[in-house]
Amino acid sequence: MTITSVQEALSGRIPAGSQVTVRGWVRTRRDSKAGLSFVNLSDGSGFHPIQLVAPAALPNYDSEVRHLTAGCAIVATGTLVASQGQGQAFEIQAEAVEVSGWVDDPETYPIQPKAHSMEFLREVAHLRPRTNLFGAVTRIRHCLAQAVHRYFHEQGFVWVNTPIITTSDAEGAGQLFRVSTLDLANLPYGEEGGVDFGRDFFGKETFLTVSGQLNVEAYALALSKVYTFGPTFRAENSNTARHLAEFWMIEPEVAFADLDALAGLSEQFLKYLFAAVLAERADDMAFIAERVEKSAVSRLEAFIAAPFERIDYTDAIALLQKSGQKFEYPVEWGLDLQTEHERWLSEQHVGRPVVVTNYPEQIKAFYMRINDDGRTVAAMDVLAPGIGEIIGGSQREERLDLLDARMAQFGIEREHYEWYRDLRRYGTVPHGGFGLGFERLVCYVCGLSNIRDAIPYPRTPGHATF
Amino acid sequence: MTITSVQEALSGRIPAGSQVTVRGWVRTRRDSKAGLSFVNLSDGSGFHPIQLVAPAALPNYDSEVRHLTAGCAIVATGTLVASQGQGQAFEIQAEAVEVSGWVDDPETYPIQPKAHSMEFLREVAHLRPRTNLFGAVTRIRHCLAQAVHRYFHEQGFVWVNTPIITTSDAEGAGQLFRVSTLDLANLPYGEEGGVDFGRDFFGKETFLTVSGQLNVEAYALALSKVYTFGPTFRAENSNTARHLAEFWMIEPEVAFADLDALAGLSEQFLKYLFAAVLAERADDMAFIAERVEKSAVSRLEAFIAAPFERIDYTDAIALLQKSGQKFEYPVEWGLDLQTEHERWLSEQHVGRPVVVTNYPEQIKAFYMRINDDGRTVAAMDVLAPGIGEIIGGSQREERLDLLDARMAQFGIEREHYEWYRDLRRYGTVPHGGFGLGFERLVCYVCGLSNIRDAIPYPRTPGHATF
Repeated sequence: MTITSVQEALSGRIPAGSQVTVRGWVRTRRDSKAGLSFVNLSDGSGFHPIQLVAPAALPNYDSEVRHLTAGCAIVATGTLVASQGQGQAFEIQAEAVEVSGWVDDPETYPIQPKAHSMEFLREVAHLRPRTNLFGAVTRIRHCLAQAVHRYFHEQGFVWVNTPIITTSDAEGAGQLFRVSTLDLANLPYGEEGGVDFGRDFFGKETFLTVSGQLNVEAYALALSKVYTFGPTFRAENSNTARHLAEFWMIEPEVAFADLDALAGLSEQFLKYLFAAVLAERADDMAFIAERVEKSAVSRLEAFIAAPFERIDYTDAIALLQKSGQKFEYPVEWGLDLQTEHERWLSEQHVGRPVVVTNYPEQIKAFYMRINDDGRTVAAMDVLAPGIGEIIGGSQREERLDLLDARMAQFGIEREHYEWYRDLRRYGTVPHGGFGLGFERLVCYVCGLSNIRDAIPYPRTPGHATF
Repeated sequence: MTITSVQEALSGRIPAGSQVTVRGWVRTRRDSKAGLSFVNLSDGSGFHPIQLVAPAALPNYDSEVRHLTAGCAIVATGTLVASQGQGQAFEIQAEAVEVSGWVDDPETYPIQPKAHSMEFLREVAHLRPRTNLFGAVTRIRHCLAQAVHRYFHEQGFVWVNTPIITTSDAEGAGQLFRVSTLDLANLPYGEEGGVDFGRDFFGKETFLTVSGQLNVEAYALALSKVYTFGPTFRAENSNTARHLAEFWMIEPEVAFADLDALAGLSEQFLKYLFAAVLAERADDMAFIAERVEKSAVSRLEAFIAAPFERIDYTDAIALLQKSGQKFEYPVEWGLDLQTEHERWLSEQHVGRPVVVTNYPEQIKAFYMRINDDGRTVAAMDVLAPGIGEIIGGSQREERLDLLDARMAQFGIEREHYEWYRDLRRYGTVPHGGFGLGFERLVCYVCGLSNIRDAIPYPRTPGHATF
């Protein structure tokens, strides 16, 4: 028995009149007075369900078909025919409908064919992929992830999975999760009274990684173009709609690259991803535009069409100061840009994505390359209308003496970074990269306002997985 | 200035006589009596370096070119010409050689152009990607990862990233790493004296995941075909060449699939991966076959050519008992197969990959589907010559009453699995999947005997990251 996916059955690639078998879950059932039932069946292969026309002549019509409810699993065989109904090209004249799984107590089944609140759906995370919205989000997320890997592969990048459990804190940024196998009821103590991490699993204190950047730099200085795409962690007590404790990060790193090359890469990369979504998930994006965010499709099209603007941080400060706009946070050379400033720049001032470059050295990480002016570093943020900062990156300080000076300035202990210094001692080259939070990207593309809806299993403090 | 990768320059796609610029790191330099130098340059884009012919007429020939050593970074421009040397089709007649980065103290640079021990290279993990072997391993690893994503995408699977931090232990298997932000010097205690995890980051006890399977089942029962590809963790104190505390796992999960379909999927999947490596990384595989494992290429070719054998566990036991072979571990119905048994089956008895199916229920996890005989479950292991078990999987118990009975038998508390039971209450269907350790696969393909050489940063107890 050959199985046809619902997407394939609706695609027009199978001639009308063909015998097909489809499998999936009932979305709705409607009984006609003419003595037949219309059953909408979804298997998740695409956005649209297919309509089965089930005649009363089916042997199990009265005993089973007329009792189908949302969520029941069925296997149906019949003839693919051009549909007379609106909005679908094909339907199936069912010749056999086999019920694989019923729904216990249909009245209380959480996923009814109606709109549910996002809050409610987060409480039934194991069932929410069955809804139109989360089916679409999951497929779009997959499409984006595939496009990430495909883009880098086509451009000659090599994927490197940097360590998840690590001893080092990439930039002193963010709170860390400790990873340990020590028995909390029976902690070992050292001679000086502190916990003896020599007795822990790795023989030292270990944490979940906040970034793979430092590790992946070593690979860039051997293979030229590399990237990470893996989970990173921040134990920040910010239970907001924009923060996750666990999120996937994409971090390309390129040898022989300056800030200009990195800005160009970020533009080409993002446009590739959005073009892939528009081309491959048009069905899901149409639903997002209809139900979630009206501009979901048009803003991606506009993003792809517009060349990125570039503005020096110093010029951006001057523009913001002259804007006449009233901001909540102060605008002053030496201070970081806040979301309100970023949005004004990309939405009001430029009206398209903008790369802000060359930030004051004191507000950026130790590994960023100091510019000739001595007071800025070769850092960049990509800001986009509707989301604000979407990418942050920098050229790295490849000159050992200047790196050492930056480390001293930031109070970073050199002995923990001997390996990182080695990269500057042995065949150093200009290099750099950027980081991109994958779930923020999914939120933007899918028009989601809460980042917990961009991950398969939402969690908040007080709710880890299940 | 357009940059050409070394792989591209050697590919034959650029006409001889073209002006090209290449960038990378020096492997070797040899000075000819004729007053010119041959510099082998690698940029990691492929296995082979390209030879630069640097004439004495270069303005920096005496001051710089003649001082180049292994590891120096250079940018070279010149004319691509057919090579007169053996083993390479093209070389570059250099017209300019710019040194980007020298090697401090070349005598002590760890990566000399000679063979190094694997133990030594693990100690300089940040530099080992510059060696022939680890360059090859990294590109092969990338090729395999790309093929994993591409295969599933082409087959209509959707990638789902299941949670890394979790409250549940998928199968009671393996030791767990605790994830916590509690201050160990100042632990909060509850009324009953135990540590109060209500004060921890997630308000409960949390661990690193050992498998995404249970979580991804919920997605299979909505989207039909899904897979995970992400890190998993085992805090096992087994510092052997075959165990990692942190490793990437691939777990497809398919709705409406029985054990036979899963065995077929595993065969098609593995053959796709190996065919991709042979087609796309022939240069690296040739090196592996020459220096690491003589049969590296031929065994993948044999793997692809042979149909998988299938043997019932009960038959496998009988075969082992009749084999006349002396085994270290006992062979008896009801006991698990050990590596020596698995290797005898696939290497001695069948001589190709074999899927062993239907294991005794008491040695397999609670979620596996009980067969009609009541004493075996629909589990499978894929065994292959040269590696042993490479895949383990099962059809899942989709019948709620039988799942409940298994959970009771294994002493698993039902209230922790209500969501998992829901999947059997609402539109249940036969389904299943398998798991595959990515680093084990890399070891097999690359002929590595120590799994620490299949990850970018090797670590052992006592050595996390750096």
